[in-house]
Amino acid sequence: MSSPASTSSSPTAIVLLSGGLDSATTLAVARRDGFACRTLAIDYGQRHRHELTAAEYVSKCLGSLQHTTLTLDLRVFGGSALTDNIAVPKNRSAAQMSSDIPITYVPARNLVFLSLATAMAEVHHASRVYIGVNAVDYSGYPDCRPEFIRSFAHTAGLATRIGVQGEPVQIITPLLHLSKAQIITLGTDLGVDFSLTHSCYDPIIRNSRTLACGSCDSCILRRDGFAAANLPDPTPYATST
Amino acid sequence: MSSPASTSSSPTAIVLLSGGLDSATTLAVARRDGFACRTLAIDYGQRHRHELTAAEYVSKCLGSLQHTTLTLDLRVFGGSALTDNIAVPKNRSAAQMSSDIPITYVPARNLVFLSLATAMAEVHHASRVYIGVNAVDYSGYPDCRPEFIRSFAHTAGLATRIGVQGEPVQIITPLLHLSKAQIITLGTDLGVDFSLTHSCYDPIIRNSRTLACGSCDSCILRRDGFAAANLPDPTPYATST
Repeated sequence: MSSPASTSSSPTAIVLLSGGLDSATTLAVARRDGFACRTLAIDYGQRHRHELTAAEYVSKCLGSLQHTTLTLDLRVFGGSALTDNIAVPKNRSAAQMSSDIPITYVPARNLVFLSLATAMAEVHHASRVYIGVNAVDYSGYPDCRPEFIRSFAHTAGLATRIGVQGEPVQIITPLLHLSKAQIITLGTDLGVDFSLTHSCYDPIIRNSRTLACGSCDSCILRRDGFAAANLPDPTPYATST
Repeated sequence: MSSPASTSSSPTAIVLLSGGLDSATTLAVARRDGFACRTLAIDYGQRHRHELTAAEYVSKCLGSLQHTTLTLDLRVFGGSALTDNIAVPKNRSAAQMSSDIPITYVPARNLVFLSLATAMAEVHHASRVYIGVNAVDYSGYPDCRPEFIRSFAHTAGLATRIGVQGEPVQIITPLLHLSKAQIITLGTDLGVDFSLTHSCYDPIIRNSRTLACGSCDSCILRRDGFAAANLPDPTPYATST
């Protein structure tokens, strides 16, 4: 996974990067689309902090102009298993995952993250914000739905200097209608090294290695995705299938 | 400025508090409307940091349930005189203030702040977010316009668990169409002690006292507002008129 570095003559995009496979693929798509990319990761107090390191690696390997980690301690609000000491659900079926909004949902997270990316876009005169939201395997998160993204783009246009001046930032969601298997295939075709990415909500440290738990919603979607894509899964799982 | 403390049986509102006179009046309105209030101030790296202390005082004096200061270092983005080492404009006329978007505009600030307040509302099951935006004396900020507020409320409904479940948070803007003089009169009627509030973008410390510069856009609007309301201005200015 190495791309030529962005040049300053290319148009600029902001890419939200979590360290997971969806956002890594999204960055690869933005690079393929010809954008010089500035990547943004949010340190919101998530328990799975290894993803912040992964985001930095992924950004560098895909030739971004700059990577920014912004600190925003959402723990002061609480209310999610991703930030609080609440058990992460395990071994749920696909039907269970899509039947409700899970406890791993962080209140209004994509609304907050897209707002921050829009602010960064305004500062850097970027015309696009890329985000790897997905409406297929979205695990019941309301802020991954297409109607939210459309509405946000309209609101962002009204909120910003660039929007008022006639060039509202565009919100690009290249993965919106892809299955996890399709995302993995696309990323592989674009040269993403998925061994650098992390998806697990509840990783285990063993002998100084970070292992994926293999049984949270995110691990299950990832593992099933590699199987459906018929591609080898490079993830080090703590438990075998 | 003292109100009876909120009780847990009242419906809850989140109130964005900056420490200035607009947001203090907004909190007083939310209290008058019968809400138990949780106030939210954002430490975004602003140079005028005295406003964070002011926000805490104002929250306590108006009987809020809780005050939260959230750290979000927007300096990593840059691009505003309120966070960067850029000179704050001085002695501008009303016509100059409304003719363009000033350098004191913080990119997408209200979009980011309302998103954070929406997240807090979701966690605390609050049905309202109050914000003291104003479309009259708004100094050319795009994110103080009514069309932005309406669009944001729609987007927030789509982004959140409470919105999906049929009770989207409402964004309340009691000052939207008031002049600064009308805001000062309203706040005075509701018992706000404006001597606790700070508006200056570029305060001066003299003999351990924080003095307002008297000549930035915010000071000019404040001073003219007290004069038009025919009420005494309790602000300690560094310069006399």
